[in-house]
Amino acid sequence: MNKAGIIMGSDSDLPIVEKAIETLKSLGVPTEVHVFSAHRTPEQARAFSLSARENGFGVLICAAGKAAHLAGAIAANTTLPVIGIPIKSSTLDGIDALLSTVQMPSGIPVATVAIDGAVNAALLAAEMLSISDPELADRLNARRAADTEKTLEKDRAIAARFNA
Amino acid sequence: MNKAGIIMGSDSDLPIVEKAIETLKSLGVPTEVHVFSAHRTPEQARAFSLSARENGFGVLICAAGKAAHLAGAIAANTTLPVIGIPIKSSTLDGIDALLSTVQMPSGIPVATVAIDGAVNAALLAAEMLSISDPELADRLNARRAADTEKTLEKDRAIAARFNA
Amino acid sequence: MNKAGIIMGSDSDLPIVEKAIETLKSLGVPTEVHVFSAHRTPEQARAFSLSARENGFGVLICAAGKAAHLAGAIAANTTLPVIGIPIKSSTLDGIDALLSTVQMPSGIPVATVAIDGAVNAALLAAEMLSISDPELADRLNARRAADTEKTLEKDRAIAARFNA
Amino acid sequence: MNKAGIIMGSDSDLPIVEKAIETLKSLGVPTEVHVFSAHRTPEQARAFSLSARENGFGVLICAAGKAAHLAGAIAANTTLPVIGIPIKSSTLDGIDALLSTVQMPSGIPVATVAIDGAVNAALLAAEMLSISDPELADRLNARRAADTEKTLEKDRAIAARFNA
Amino acid sequence: MNKAGIIMGSDSDLPIVEKAIETLKSLGVPTEVHVFSAHRTPEQARAFSLSARENGFGVLICAAGKAAHLAGAIAANTTLPVIGIPIKSSTLDGIDALLSTVQMPSGIPVATVAIDGAVNAALLAAEMLSISDPELADRLNARRAADTEKTLEKDRAIAARFNA
Amino acid sequence: MNKAGIIMGSDSDLPIVEKAIETLKSLGVPTEVHVFSAHRTPEQARAFSLSARENGFGVLICAAGKAAHLAGAIAANTTLPVIGIPIKSSTLDGIDALLSTVQMPSGIPVATVAIDGAVNAALLAAEMLSISDPELADRLNARRAADTEKTLEKDRAIAARFNA
Amino acid sequence: MNKAGIIMGSDSDLPIVEKAIETLKSLGVPTEVHVFSAHRTPEQARAFSLSARENGFGVLICAAGKAAHLAGAIAANTTLPVIGIPIKSSTLDGIDALLSTVQMPSGIPVATVAIDGAVNAALLAAEMLSISDPELADRLNARRAADTEKTLEKDRAIAARFNA
Amino acid sequence: MNKAGIIMGSDSDLPIVEKAIETLKSLGVPTEVHVFSAHRTPEQARAFSLSARENGFGVLICAAGKAAHLAGAIAANTTLPVIGIPIKSSTLDGIDALLSTVQMPSGIPVATVAIDGAVNAALLAAEMLSISDPELADRLNARRAADTEKTLEKDRAIAARFNA
Repeated sequence: MNKAGIIMGSDSDLPIVEKAIETLKSLGVPTEVHVFSAHRTPEQARAFSLSARENGFGVLICAAGKAAHLAGAIAANTTLPVIGIPIKSSTLDGIDALLSTVQMPSGIPVATVAIDGAVNAALLAAEMLSISDPELADRLNARRAADTEKTLEKDRAIAARFNA
Repeated sequence: MNKAGIIMGSDSDLPIVEKAIETLKSLGVPTEVHVFSAHRTPEQARAFSLSARENGFGVLICAAGKAAHLAGAIAANTTLPVIGIPIKSSTLDGIDALLSTVQMPSGIPVATVAIDGAVNAALLAAEMLSISDPELADRLNARRAADTEKTLEKDRAIAARFNA
Repeated sequence: MNKAGIIMGSDSDLPIVEKAIETLKSLGVPTEVHVFSAHRTPEQARAFSLSARENGFGVLICAAGKAAHLAGAIAANTTLPVIGIPIKSSTLDGIDALLSTVQMPSGIPVATVAIDGAVNAALLAAEMLSISDPELADRLNARRAADTEKTLEKDRAIAARFNA
Repeated sequence: MNKAGIIMGSDSDLPIVEKAIETLKSLGVPTEVHVFSAHRTPEQARAFSLSARENGFGVLICAAGKAAHLAGAIAANTTLPVIGIPIKSSTLDGIDALLSTVQMPSGIPVATVAIDGAVNAALLAAEMLSISDPELADRLNARRAADTEKTLEKDRAIAARFNA
Repeated sequence: MNKAGIIMGSDSDLPIVEKAIETLKSLGVPTEVHVFSAHRTPEQARAFSLSARENGFGVLICAAGKAAHLAGAIAANTTLPVIGIPIKSSTLDGIDALLSTVQMPSGIPVATVAIDGAVNAALLAAEMLSISDPELADRLNARRAADTEKTLEKDRAIAARFNA
Repeated sequence: MNKAGIIMGSDSDLPIVEKAIETLKSLGVPTEVHVFSAHRTPEQARAFSLSARENGFGVLICAAGKAAHLAGAIAANTTLPVIGIPIKSSTLDGIDALLSTVQMPSGIPVATVAIDGAVNAALLAAEMLSISDPELADRLNARRAADTEKTLEKDRAIAARFNA
Repeated sequence: MNKAGIIMGSDSDLPIVEKAIETLKSLGVPTEVHVFSAHRTPEQARAFSLSARENGFGVLICAAGKAAHLAGAIAANTTLPVIGIPIKSSTLDGIDALLSTVQMPSGIPVATVAIDGAVNAALLAAEMLSISDPELADRLNARRAADTEKTLEKDRAIAARFNA
Repeated sequence: MNKAGIIMGSDSDLPIVEKAIETLKSLGVPTEVHVFSAHRTPEQARAFSLSARENGFGVLICAAGKAAHLAGAIAANTTLPVIGIPIKSSTLDGIDALLSTVQMPSGIPVATVAIDGAVNAALLAAEMLSISDPELADRLNARRAADTEKTLEKDRAIAARFNA
């Protein structure tokens, strides 16, 4: 299976990013995690992204805050799909990171998820890999079904409490 | 090759969506185009998305404006990757469609591109399909190289005009 | 009397939604409470809304956060009035839920109240039911008069403290 | 049948409001239309709303722009349901009217629809009246079915054009 | 001297409004304080504002949050100057109250100060009364001079600490 | 009578500001109009504001766009009331000018009106002067009554057209 | 004298950027103009910025729209001062470009000017070069004085028209 | 070497501004720190800025919150480069200070950094001074290299933890 790369712009993003790591692990997707900064270690980010496809990656997840350039900088050097997680790390509630991640110019897409949406970034990466991996698709479907069952259970609990 | 599905919430979105259709065509990705509304034809949207994977789709692109629920409604019924294009179609510059598309709850990701970002939605869909399709990856890389060359040409023209 | 349905997208919304339940109870409006998610349990949300009118509901209240699709998804399957409560549950102060709830496309209205405005959602539901129920109208008028009296009492207290 | 009252804060709002008038007419809902300003004719707005229920109104629709107080001012004097249409009439894209209409304090609800959402305001009013009027419910359902059919037709046209 | 009226929409606004009361007191401006709600006690707000000029008021200060209609409702019934203090009392950081207060339609002005800007509302009221009251003008100038002196003192302290 | 000073930051603001000039003229308030820039002619703005009270001004109206510092710069040098008109003159719909004008620090109030709200700025200035000028108060009341009559006439026209 | 580099992300930015070119030319500052894209020609942007100081540049101006990463990408590779011009080039009025440019992480500053503020970017560049160039400082002071004189002339014209 | 001036609008800004002071000190840039308010001590701000260049300053850093006029007021009186730090000090997350600082009118630039971005303001000031000071450029480059090394170290730590 192709690997998922997970890159955070700063290790202060780890509490959010860790949920993506755990989600991919639970789905059996091999991952590789890095701290690369578009601004502080641009050479490393560049080298990594230029060779990502040949190194066996199938998808890259990038998490960054404020003027979040990381996902775009990675996407500039690969035609692998790049997923961007805007991180709330300024006074502005993450709207700066969201716009810096999603409003990419024509030609260089970034697949953006919700602010701090690390679980969804991981699920989206797995969904991409599942296009040609029926077993991963089965695991995604099973997880989805389990989520549905949990919500049904909550409905039963609420109904029992309020609708008796 | 897996197909890309392109769904718009209203045929008034076609002038934007057409760029996605053309981009996928130019990359040799088979596509199927539909008008499904999360609110006006929810049954059709549901039936389509529930059977999308078994019907040979690899990725679904959804374009909608205002309180743009289409991508999320489609994503609720499939574990294929779903790409959302927020369309500017109210007085609010598309920010309503952007937030309605990107701020998905945990468990149901939507890969969101820029407001009216139809070309990037198509490129992102092709990138996802390219994970297991080296020839499509080659075509994406060639397109990227052509874009680079166009920008270099513009730099030469500007330099000739201003830096003589 | 027709029932009011109260649906929350997640049981984490209960602390807000509980105020709606209490308000309707205090007005003598029969209610039924559920946890349905537009994304995690779309089948249940669909089945519930398709049969709501025939099952004796007169109005449905839907509470959801982030890209809040629940009210719209319910409204897509019924011509009963649907009230949407945008819940603050992301970093964005509830503005994502507000726009996702209120900016509905033409044809499918959602009656939107303030962010976290559960008391007003319940009052609005009761007002709708009061159109053909003079006794409920009387109870609403009495409650309004009591609110007025409370404010008058506050004015007297403030006046006594500062205007002596 | 109870009447729907339609109130606009200024006759410059008529191009938007006219769509609500037409929609209610097409559904056979008797309407009465007024220009009342919360600020320029507060006495008339007050007198109208205080007697609205006894004068046979079942629901009131209020359209206003900028610091849109009209719906709230009307709602302060009646326990009939009040629907607010925020009108874009300043430089701010209607967000001022939206927040002034929807963010009502606890106790005085306003059922807010989208900016310039006059058709939905009318449909919502009819839905409220339909709670106790099965024939109106039938007409609403028929209109919804016709909308669905129109969207299906658009899908067929798009499919014929692009999926041949 | 003409009195300043201070009206708050809810006694929960008192912690902010109290600063206005103290500031006016320190400047020797007679004040009268009330809790009137544009929505819960509209009759009282109306009666007060209709007779404010004849009752010796020179200026009215109104503090309210969320869809803050109070200042506008008061201004609709008097040609005395009305000052609006937008109060932060929702999830939206006070921007709802600011727009609801400042974006008044042509004909009915509200003199808006900063969100939670109670001290400035009081100073502004005193400035208005000072137009025809040279002694109050002197007191305002003295207070301003004292503020200047305090800032100069802070500069000396900072300079001593860092520029030695 | 005290004069009203009207200051615009640039003569490109004149199309908006002219409405303030005309409104004050129609109310018989003597005015003096200037172009002073907080940034390009700070000395003139300073000299004017320092001597404004002794030169017979009772109130100053300042109109400026973008990072609108003019009203605050004038207010820093006088304890006369200063009214700020935020002008839409950038890509940002006037929200930059609104925040730059209204969010003044404690101690230096600016009475802010709506974006491009020149008529209301003039009315507010006249209201301030009317505190000690009963004849001006009468003219303001007459104008208000005329506005009311115009709205009543519009209501009659709309009622005749739609409620026959 | 050190050169100013002017880089635009796309030649569609030229109508704005041309004002910066002209302003620097009028001040006698040698300039070099380029089209480099952070995403389409990252190698060229990188090579240019890595060698900018040794190639005689003293300051770099970068103009870009949407998720404007250009200034940050350039700043990542040099410790020369980098000025960012956010360009309005999406539906969002330039606020996306502004936040993407100004909200830089600690360590990599970008000196941001107003949206579309090309003249000010050029003046700021000249001001930086003037720190060690008294003659350029003189030219900047002369230009400032001329601006002041133009505003004084406008004041005289307005005063003659309205204050006669 | 030219000095850097650091001006804060209030000593409550010191916890943020202190980071700028420390950063400049660590780079060996002589600094002078002041508390000047554009509104409370305009004379001092004016006198300081008018003579800043002749008094040996090369760059001025201004920090202010809310309707942050300080940087613009300083810039109005000098052609030295002025850096603005928008401070979060109201309920609005610093967006008021950001727009008040960055949206300067043509002719008077302010080099704006991120909200609360004091370290970057200091680095930017040093970068400006480094244009003609190769040793300072060396120190800036060394600091940048150290930052890069720290990020590389974090990457090694993360890789060791997750990629083993």
